[in-house]
Amino acid sequence: MSNRIKCIVMYNGSRFNGFQRQPRGRTVQDTLEKALSTIHKEPIQLHGCGRTDAQVHAYYQVFHFDTNLDIPASNWKRAINSLLPKDVYIKDVEIVDTSFHARYSAKSKEYRYYLSLDEYDPIKMDMMAFKRYQTLDVDKMVEAIELFKGTHDFTSFTGQVKKNCVRTIHEAEIVKHHNHLEFIFRGNGFLRYQIRIMVGTLIEIGEGRRQLDSVNHLYEIKDRQKAGFTADPQGLYLYHVEY
Amino acid sequence: MSNRIKCIVMYNGSRFNGFQRQPRGRTVQDTLEKALSTIHKEPIQLHGCGRTDAQVHAYYQVFHFDTNLDIPASNWKRAINSLLPKDVYIKDVEIVDTSFHARYSAKSKEYRYYLSLDEYDPIKMDMMAFKRYQTLDVDKMVEAIELFKGTHDFTSFTGQVKKNCVRTIHEAEIVKHHNHLEFIFRGNGFLRYQIRIMVGTLIEIGEGRRQLDSVNHLYEIKDRQKAGFTADPQGLYLYHVEY
Repeated sequence: MSNRIKCIVMYNGSRFNGFQRQPRGRTVQDTLEKALSTIHKEPIQLHGCGRTDAQVHAYYQVFHFDTNLDIPASNWKRAINSLLPKDVYIKDVEIVDTSFHARYSAKSKEYRYYLSLDEYDPIKMDMMAFKRYQTLDVDKMVEAIELFKGTHDFTSFTGQVKKNCVRTIHEAEIVKHHNHLEFIFRGNGFLRYQIRIMVGTLIEIGEGRRQLDSVNHLYEIKDRQKAGFTADPQGLYLYHVEY
Repeated sequence: MSNRIKCIVMYNGSRFNGFQRQPRGRTVQDTLEKALSTIHKEPIQLHGCGRTDAQVHAYYQVFHFDTNLDIPASNWKRAINSLLPKDVYIKDVEIVDTSFHARYSAKSKEYRYYLSLDEYDPIKMDMMAFKRYQTLDVDKMVEAIELFKGTHDFTSFTGQVKKNCVRTIHEAEIVKHHNHLEFIFRGNGFLRYQIRIMVGTLIEIGEGRRQLDSVNHLYEIKDRQKAGFTADPQGLYLYHVEY
């Protein structure tokens, strides 16, 4: 296996049971490995930069695999895409040094979350989340999201039982658009459900059902039950990975 | 059945086998009638303003039904929506005179078609169509769409075998957006596949694979085989109905 291939893949998560291979359900990894194995006429395993949950989308997910085939990068793109279903698309292929690892070389990841401010719209049902109640105090949410920046113990903000839940968030911002909110989170790594629980907590603050300073309290008490609800998966996008 | 109820419904066509009841597959009409029959505890039949094909969306589809129940319009909206799956949503309910008929009272219908000019994007795969080739001469398409305006025999532009294929198109326009084209068609009625075949014909003109004046020739020869391909359903939206 002399060549290492880095791929940037986009996918629509609506009909997937997440990125990573699972005992049950269709996954992005299975779908990609099936295409790669067809090309190689032998089983090929890929290494993704991280997981995404069922129904979560990716504008920019990264994986690598090793191959003996000598194929130019642009031909790889065409060959893999020709074998993929329409909800997965290889955006870019690069032949990289074997020191590159999709997961371990990643420096930071960016996720974005989209919440509509309009009335419910079934045409966008797979693309974004919708409000639960009539009003949202967006200014308060903009203030609250600042509290997620920096290095904190995010035990209260994950469904995962893990020894070390300390993570660093470099950027946390809400951009107000005409008819939706865009939440931007960039950090060195995120725990399972972390972004969706942070967004759920921010929504509860915006609804006036939760105090702004409860975020700092949640860092201390380390109790998932006391944090906000887990926001719907279809609003979440893996948006970028930096190496 | 003393009250006639007019409803405006939006739906995401991706997981439907069209609007109208079919021997096979999930349809919007079935889904709506099931909700209405649950409310009434007896079978209720609705009358739609027209059909849409599998995977075609509606921002604004209209139907009516008759009822003995005396319920205010806003309560109807809440009651029906509470029984619908997330890909169908009642936007508005009005109690109307029994002279109103969703289909026969309709004066004109507007359809819109969305064609991306960007590289393929799986996240938008259910929402719009994508280019087949690299380049499109949009100015030529803008010129060609003018030929659809007015009263013509659209036999070449339908999959339907029908005695009278004469229809009048009041408005036909292409709006160029940053990264997509929006085709607007408004007329007194459209034949099956008519809009998708007109759009397919315009795309072939834009690709330089078909002459602009072939449209006039198609009115004369009345031959579906000589018109353009049927454009993908997911780009098509029933956009408005006027009464």
